[in-house]
Amino acid sequence: MARRATVFAPGTVGNVGPGFDVLGLAVGGIGDTVTVELHAGPDVIEAVTGRDAGQIPRETMRNSAAIAARAFLDGRGLRDVRFRMTMDKGLTLAGGMGGSAASSVAGALAAARAIDQDASPAALMEAALVGESAVSGPHLDNIAASVLGGLTLVRSTQPMDVVQVPLHGEWWVALVTPEVRIETRAARALLPEAWGRAEWVQQMANTAALVHAFATGDRDLVRRSLHDGYAEPRRAALIPRFAEVKQAAFDCGALGCSISGSGPTVFALAASSSDAVRCASVMQAAFAGIPASAHVGRVSDEGARELR
Amino acid sequence: MARRATVFAPGTVGNVGPGFDVLGLAVGGIGDTVTVELHAGPDVIEAVTGRDAGQIPRETMRNSAAIAARAFLDGRGLRDVRFRMTMDKGLTLAGGMGGSAASSVAGALAAARAIDQDASPAALMEAALVGESAVSGPHLDNIAASVLGGLTLVRSTQPMDVVQVPLHGEWWVALVTPEVRIETRAARALLPEAWGRAEWVQQMANTAALVHAFATGDRDLVRRSLHDGYAEPRRAALIPRFAEVKQAAFDCGALGCSISGSGPTVFALAASSSDAVRCASVMQAAFAGIPASAHVGRVSDEGARELR
Repeated sequence: MARRATVFAPGTVGNVGPGFDVLGLAVGGIGDTVTVELHAGPDVIEAVTGRDAGQIPRETMRNSAAIAARAFLDGRGLRDVRFRMTMDKGLTLAGGMGGSAASSVAGALAAARAIDQDASPAALMEAALVGESAVSGPHLDNIAASVLGGLTLVRSTQPMDVVQVPLHGEWWVALVTPEVRIETRAARALLPEAWGRAEWVQQMANTAALVHAFATGDRDLVRRSLHDGYAEPRRAALIPRFAEVKQAAFDCGALGCSISGSGPTVFALAASSSDAVRCASVMQAAFAGIPASAHVGRVSDEGARELR
Repeated sequence: MARRATVFAPGTVGNVGPGFDVLGLAVGGIGDTVTVELHAGPDVIEAVTGRDAGQIPRETMRNSAAIAARAFLDGRGLRDVRFRMTMDKGLTLAGGMGGSAASSVAGALAAARAIDQDASPAALMEAALVGESAVSGPHLDNIAASVLGGLTLVRSTQPMDVVQVPLHGEWWVALVTPEVRIETRAARALLPEAWGRAEWVQQMANTAALVHAFATGDRDLVRRSLHDGYAEPRRAALIPRFAEVKQAAFDCGALGCSISGSGPTVFALAASSSDAVRCASVMQAAFAGIPASAHVGRVSDEGARELR
């Protein structure tokens, strides 16, 4: 007992343009930190600090990190092993940067390290999916990227089949988050259930080309293929001044720009840190009075990890 | 005048499982050969030999190779340059091995070489698309693979944007063609215009994973991702004993098996020539009395080329 572990899990861009529910991209330098300490009492969340801390549920049955930690322990037959948890949120709630996924991943890995286990990526993703499903839905794209780092491709959720795509070259991400709330479920309700052939074939071609472009370092192909015909046109209206923000990103050299996950965070992809910083700045300005936070990070090769 | 050129263009697997209208794969050792000789008279097709020769239109306005050759010349302002053409068909008409595409590509490249030009892939694809459009529709997947060889990804047809995906490792293809006629247009009519989100997202994930698997030589990922939920289930009924043929391919170690283009050719992918030969043989047997021709070839790195 009394083993404890602290884990950081990175924020992630879900969808990554055309790759709806399929692609995820881990962003360095921003994420959620969860500490799990085994103890004799019932499972409890002792403290939540950081962004939107006041809105994070303290009940272990409604908190994605605690649900994922519990799922990980239960999955190993350790129903009687109990924990207390603290969370430090770097990611906003419902910001579109994979906040609930990162919390779930961090919760599951912290539980694993607290019982001194090296959890496999598959075991972590499974436990994290239980946490994510409870708060937003059974989506694996953000979870996969937060566990594995880099660019991930969810080939199948059930059964779970995730491909990590090694990136070629340097890629930077600018994330700009206006102070607007969008619930994942509400954003999903805007999307039609059925879609025309010409449209999904185009989306499929863009997604396959985008993966190949990242894997080969083909920046121009990223520029040509990072287009989302499905979610972006329908969700753009939820983000005030989205068109202007996107235009600003392209004007300053972004390789691509779209909504991160279900928004309201807008991400831009860039070839260098200076391009990314400049993009973040002009995008923020393009929100014209709507307060917006910004983060610039390298696409992170590293996924969730224990902090020592 | 009187310059002449003979060109071979390989047969191709269109769609390649999930990659509907997007992926194409060139197969070595089988294709169409076209000779163009400049002359003073009107454009004329002098002879057509080979498979289904009797059904190939002799009118230059209805023959895909002649239409493509004409389109190539016209595109260079050479309306007054006339040709006579001979064709030798290795590919069946409406067989699902990209026969009209190969003829179009060979016609365009033969015209280019006859006027002593090195045509760019884009110029060839554009001219070939005119030929292909006239006989089956504006589909670029077979054309791209026949021009470039290997695995190709059509990111966009209009404007034209094609990615050649370098393959890692050795890949072999078994093609088995039962004596059943399927017209591309009829096969298209079976396909619904709109499709559900869960389905196209799955198809997109498989296509992106398949491209990555070929590029990295990941055979097991090919096996997991070469699944077509769109065309294959709807077109399978057009191919007698398709389920048995597919099962036979998997039983003898195929990495994947589906309908080539709009059929009736069934292709199987294998890791070695001996596996591919064995697959071809058991697939042929599984057609159980329906006469079926077979071809086994390596995935060809080489696209259309002049023969000397």
